Amino acid sequence: MMNIAVLGYGTVGSGVVEIVNTKHAYIQGRSSEADLNVKYILDLRDFPGDPNEDKVTHDFNDILNDNSVRIVAEAMGGTKPAFEFTAKLLEAGKHVVTSNKELVATHGLELLKIAKEHNVNYMFEASVGGGIPLLRPLSYCLAANEIQAINGILNGTTNFILSKMINENLTFEEALEIAQANGYAEADPTADVEGIDACRKICILADLAFGANVDPAKVHAEGITKITLEDVAYANNCGSVIKLVGTAKRLPDGKAYITVSPAIVRSGSQLAAVSDVFNGVLINGDKVGDVFFYGPGAGKLPTASAVVADIIDCANHDEKRKMLGWGPEIDGMVADYREVPNEYYIRLKVENPAEAQQEIRDAFGKIYLLARSGAYNTELAFITAPFTENEVRAKLDALHSVKLKSLIRVADC
Amino acid sequence: MMNIAVLGYGTVGSGVVEIVNTKHAYIQGRSSEADLNVKYILDLRDFPGDPNEDKVTHDFNDILNDNSVRIVAEAMGGTKPAFEFTAKLLEAGKHVVTSNKELVATHGLELLKIAKEHNVNYMFEASVGGGIPLLRPLSYCLAANEIQAINGILNGTTNFILSKMINENLTFEEALEIAQANGYAEADPTADVEGIDACRKICILADLAFGANVDPAKVHAEGITKITLEDVAYANNCGSVIKLVGTAKRLPDGKAYITVSPAIVRSGSQLAAVSDVFNGVLINGDKVGDVFFYGPGAGKLPTASAVVADIIDCANHDEKRKMLGWGPEIDGMVADYREVPNEYYIRLKVENPAEAQQEIRDAFGKIYLLARSGAYNTELAFITAPFTENEVRAKLDALHSVKLKSLIRVADC
Repeated sequence: MMNIAVLGYGTVGSGVVEIVNTKHAYIQGRSSEADLNVKYILDLRDFPGDPNEDKVTHDFNDILNDNSVRIVAEAMGGTKPAFEFTAKLLEAGKHVVTSNKELVATHGLELLKIAKEHNVNYMFEASVGGGIPLLRPLSYCLAANEIQAINGILNGTTNFILSKMINENLTFEEALEIAQANGYAEADPTADVEGIDACRKICILADLAFGANVDPAKVHAEGITKITLEDVAYANNCGSVIKLVGTAKRLPDGKAYITVSPAIVRSGSQLAAVSDVFNGVLINGDKVGDVFFYGPGAGKLPTASAVVADIIDCANHDEKRKMLGWGPEIDGMVADYREVPNEYYIRLKVENPAEAQQEIRDAFGKIYLLARSGAYNTELAFITAPFTENEVRAKLDALHSVKLKSLIRVADC
Repeated sequence: MMNIAVLGYGTVGSGVVEIVNTKHAYIQGRSSEADLNVKYILDLRDFPGDPNEDKVTHDFNDILNDNSVRIVAEAMGGTKPAFEFTAKLLEAGKHVVTSNKELVATHGLELLKIAKEHNVNYMFEASVGGGIPLLRPLSYCLAANEIQAINGILNGTTNFILSKMINENLTFEEALEIAQANGYAEADPTADVEGIDACRKICILADLAFGANVDPAKVHAEGITKITLEDVAYANNCGSVIKLVGTAKRLPDGKAYITVSPAIVRSGSQLAAVSDVFNGVLINGDKVGDVFFYGPGAGKLPTASAVVADIIDCANHDEKRKMLGWGPEIDGMVADYREVPNEYYIRLKVENPAEAQQEIRDAFGKIYLLARSGAYNTELAFITAPFTENEVRAKLDALHSVKLKSLIRVADC
């Protein structure tokens, strides 16, 4: 009997308990030599009538001090008190697995160090891409590859909203309302629509890919609140779609370009076909080339199934720590996103289109002009050759009678 | 220093040596605590002038009897002498990793048993999907899922040929010639075009997914040699493409439908977008839903990078065996493919189209008629509701003056 505890009986936590309880015989028969048993559920609430009511405790110390508990699944979210609880559990020699991307992105390095010191595992497959296998493939299957680039659609809420804008011509506000009505967006959608959630995830991927800690606070994240239907239409005109893309890319100078922002994704890219609440991640390794992972990036049972996979792995490796982690932050590794060249999509309001077009060509050289039906005749939209954002802004500032309406990078994938 | 040996200095074997030698510092820094060193290369040939010339031996016993060799990469292909060599190495307490799908599909169960008895690892990530992470994600990341279905494009050669037929309207023979000229098909292309290679791979996936050995000899495999441009055109007419699909699916009666054959893949399926020599595998788990893996299914460095990933994993788990494997064959588990219901695409030569259409509707009930430009007026093509192949053939046999030209299942993914 291997006892486990679950911290937080919300969406993911209750999914973990459900899977461990109902798939018990299956898991033991196929995946694990251990007989997994949920002994405690930590939550501030009571759950009268719930089949697992008797396992609920309000006291973290019940779990911390019970030596029969070997594995703890943390599904509380946030960093307080999740960080303190996780650190104490690891120090007590218990394995901890989690779906908590905020905690892993901000304190993962520290927690992995504590885990190593106490010869236990801290695992977090569910923290990126929900149910999609991502972190093990990246860390183990691609271990012989120097990872050159990762481009991912890492947030289902924003992808759902953008899909509605693209396919049904809804505005951002209308699409957000539908997402909220369907439970895909929270009442306060800030962390999703401002790119904060996706930023945590690209940082975790970059940690593992580059072997050095990436602080989300130093990564530029831009959300989708400013995307308009005009932009969606112009993107469509060049066979593209607008997606919220997390990017982590090695640069020739040894730095890394790490960012989250809306991006123009060409229809040939695997990312273009990732619709609705799904996630998709394209990883480029120097030996393997491009590999692509796709699936449900959130949801109770998909995410919980990834947490339970980590529990099973801990149970199978109780004595032996897995090799998973990364080194400390490298000073100056994250390049200024404004200094990295990208092709850009630019939409302008101009006074005299013919004149403006000539000025733009003089400033940018070759551009690719875009059209949309119903465009104002004072509107100009085009794709540039590769420039840095600083260069683009300087060129635009020097133009006469031109107002910048949209500036969106073109994804390089 | 952890010494390794490579059996076979062909495409994959030489790639393994190249990666271990050139990525040595990178691998040691990021992925492995061990200092990997290629000590022997076994091959019947000499390689005068090759930088690794001095490591080549013709004598397997040099490797078998050298206790400093802890890990052996088998990249010989075939089963003789690969099976005997692998068994002896495992019995001698060495880890063995391989890209040899024929050996894993036919003798994997036996070799895993020997590995377990001697507390070493037998790993084969590269045997399915080349460089695409597949077997670890399936075995570990999806461990909490009961796998319901796997549908995969598992052979790059046939996918390249079909892509040429679909996109450039070339015949099978013309496309095969181009594949051979590009090195994507061998002089004797039988194993690829007859579905034998894909069959080995779907059997390995089924072994891991269902936890029971699946003998490739008991699995129906049909290749793409009979696919015509008429079929390609009709598929296109219903928004579909023809792909060589390996399927392993749980059936309601507890049996499994395991087969490789051409299949009509609807454009909404992730598999439809897998073009050229790429592979793609869609896995459905009862908790996670659909997850999809895509990338290069063959090629020197992609495949070798997966072999090296296994080497690294063995080096990191030298004392502790990984939990990977499956149980013995379950008698009668593989259902008769002719008794499993599928929608079918059927192309007929008929004498009187109007009469035949009425007869067909009487026999099959609702059908979906297809069109193509340039069709003969004695041609009828349609999609049926779900029937077994035996039912379909019995119905067709009962029709008058009708000749069956093509019968292709519609993929359920």
